[in-house]
Amino acid sequence: MDSIFADRITGVPRSFIREILKVALDHTFISFAGGLPNPNLFPVKELKKAANKVFRTFGNDVLQYADSEGYYGLREAIARRYFEKKGLEISPEEILITTGSQQGIDLIAKCLLNEGDSLVIEEPSYLAAIQAFSLYRPRFTPVPLRDEGMDTDGLKRVYAAGSPKMIYTIPNFQNPSGITYSERNRHEIADIVSGKRTLLVEDDPYGELRFAGSPAPSFKKLLPESTILLGTFSKIVSPSLRLGWLAAPEAIMSKLIIAKQAADLHTSYFIQCMVYQYLKDNDIDKHIEKIRECYGRQCRAMINGIEEFFPASVTHTRPEGGMFLWAALPEYMSSRDLIDIAIKDKVIFVPGDTFFVNGRGANTMRLNFTCSGVEEIRTGTERLGNAIKKLLK
Amino acid sequence: MDSIFADRITGVPRSFIREILKVALDHTFISFAGGLPNPNLFPVKELKKAANKVFRTFGNDVLQYADSEGYYGLREAIARRYFEKKGLEISPEEILITTGSQQGIDLIAKCLLNEGDSLVIEEPSYLAAIQAFSLYRPRFTPVPLRDEGMDTDGLKRVYAAGSPKMIYTIPNFQNPSGITYSERNRHEIADIVSGKRTLLVEDDPYGELRFAGSPAPSFKKLLPESTILLGTFSKIVSPSLRLGWLAAPEAIMSKLIIAKQAADLHTSYFIQCMVYQYLKDNDIDKHIEKIRECYGRQCRAMINGIEEFFPASVTHTRPEGGMFLWAALPEYMSSRDLIDIAIKDKVIFVPGDTFFVNGRGANTMRLNFTCSGVEEIRTGTERLGNAIKKLLK
Repeated sequence: MDSIFADRITGVPRSFIREILKVALDHTFISFAGGLPNPNLFPVKELKKAANKVFRTFGNDVLQYADSEGYYGLREAIARRYFEKKGLEISPEEILITTGSQQGIDLIAKCLLNEGDSLVIEEPSYLAAIQAFSLYRPRFTPVPLRDEGMDTDGLKRVYAAGSPKMIYTIPNFQNPSGITYSERNRHEIADIVSGKRTLLVEDDPYGELRFAGSPAPSFKKLLPESTILLGTFSKIVSPSLRLGWLAAPEAIMSKLIIAKQAADLHTSYFIQCMVYQYLKDNDIDKHIEKIRECYGRQCRAMINGIEEFFPASVTHTRPEGGMFLWAALPEYMSSRDLIDIAIKDKVIFVPGDTFFVNGRGANTMRLNFTCSGVEEIRTGTERLGNAIKKLLK
Repeated sequence: MDSIFADRITGVPRSFIREILKVALDHTFISFAGGLPNPNLFPVKELKKAANKVFRTFGNDVLQYADSEGYYGLREAIARRYFEKKGLEISPEEILITTGSQQGIDLIAKCLLNEGDSLVIEEPSYLAAIQAFSLYRPRFTPVPLRDEGMDTDGLKRVYAAGSPKMIYTIPNFQNPSGITYSERNRHEIADIVSGKRTLLVEDDPYGELRFAGSPAPSFKKLLPESTILLGTFSKIVSPSLRLGWLAAPEAIMSKLIIAKQAADLHTSYFIQCMVYQYLKDNDIDKHIEKIRECYGRQCRAMINGIEEFFPASVTHTRPEGGMFLWAALPEYMSSRDLIDIAIKDKVIFVPGDTFFVNGRGANTMRLNFTCSGVEEIRTGTERLGNAIKKLLK
């Protein structure tokens, strides 16, 4: 190969999202294309207080190099919360603080994936995860998502040809589909994986954002020794801070720490202390409840808008939480054609084929509901409905 | 291979430093083993002010997701400083903000090194860089350091066998040796590299910390199209924040941005804004001058102590800046044997073989002078001198 670049970087899929988000800077547009939390809900005042307290009480120490594993007090707080909220028994030693959960994906891939290893992903799946995994050149094995979760017949067919090295899942309010795995689906998957040499990566950035239905057990509960659980403060506190974590079996942890050191030595210690202080001095559950109520309202507004303005031939998911809803045009239609019309009508979304590794999903689209007001969502779905009707003609 | 781990992670050299630093927690020890900036010089009050101003003026926005390239205002400030201080013409678009310069090394390796590519490193070299590079499995080609810089005869021999893909250098006050490349040495290296398909990575974490002698030109000046320059706020503001950058030719930048997205989406936007504000409201040059004076005093105290207490058969470097000094026992002696005696005498350092990829340097040691007071440095060198004398017996 004559390129100066490493082979691994040449295979990373391009993101349509970056390009489309530029349009979103024009405020006459209504954007369902983003993936951002609602900024009106960020706890600015509380974090400011926490920052001041940290400077006051930690002094010089908070500005020095720190442990690669992360601040022990924060790891304890995360472990305690897992126990209280989900009954998960995870020790602070099994928690590694990461620079956002995006870094968690990168470290896992770096430590565990050889080129050509089989990696099961959901179809569709989270684009930035696919990009991070791509750099380690696994063999992607997509298994379709159904309304109930991952298609277990599809997963069994994968196992018939040999155990995959890894399964990457977002079981709660998945990005991009908004789908949540049912309790039964989780048990079926755990039964298939149990006893095999497969690591299951459970990415759970949205798990706390449930506004309907009731929680199903974590894979970390069902398959404790095979599951690496990823978490983040991005959706419940602030994404700017880049603060996440992973919970991994101890046998894997020592290698993950080596990879963490090589990647960035440690995550900003100041940020870790600030969020630790924030958690100590505030009722995070009350704050999360506010986010849930807001996103629930926004999601219902979007479903109402879709049912009022979209042709009946368009199907959609009914998320129980999270930030995204998924819609499908009739099979023969293309959401790339739709976006051209929609842009003229000043409404945007992300064409669904972006979230597939094989060009499928041409008729689908991802709609984000967290960054527009209820009225705006109504207007946006009306514009989008009209655009679909124009395309149908 | 039967391991669950990826092959790349199994080849990373272990760090002796982590183990030895545990001893340093005992305050009766004098430690020359660390690699930490002096915490008494951290601008706590000024950063606290900057944080408050950022919360006040940026509001919600500072807590939202941000650009992968980094905050444009900060990239402009870095570019301006390069122009004013070194006459380097680098545009903000050629600067990528990284989560510490450690991440810069990881991104460069990820984008540019295929397995087996030839990578020239200094002998000895910076351990955490060797670890980060190791994960991409290059063929390490060490070229010895001399008092004047990299051994150019050694480098020419490397080129005789074919141009290496990359050269990794720390030309100013190198870690671990404290050596600075002379102006002549830089020109000779630039002549060898010029016109070849080699990328030169110029890691410059300590460049601002000169307390003696006069600056020599950056490789970015001599080889602008072949050099990737790494910088960091760790040594001039605070390492806890994890804020660094790289300056790369535009042709490489787009791939580096893809790797950055995959690694952690972006560096903490809050941290970027806080340091931007700090730079805007304070005279960083005055602050750096304080660090230089302090480190210069500490370095001279160490040299005085060595000359007073060490046997004359021990040689050492005379750093013109930075944080480290390098000493060599007579060839037949081992600094690993010395550390066992030194620990009993309550003084520690890092055995030099840690910084070699091939087991050489058994008689050498790295001494850090930034984290002990002048009196403590005197006592520490006395203890270490006595330990050497015991070993000589």
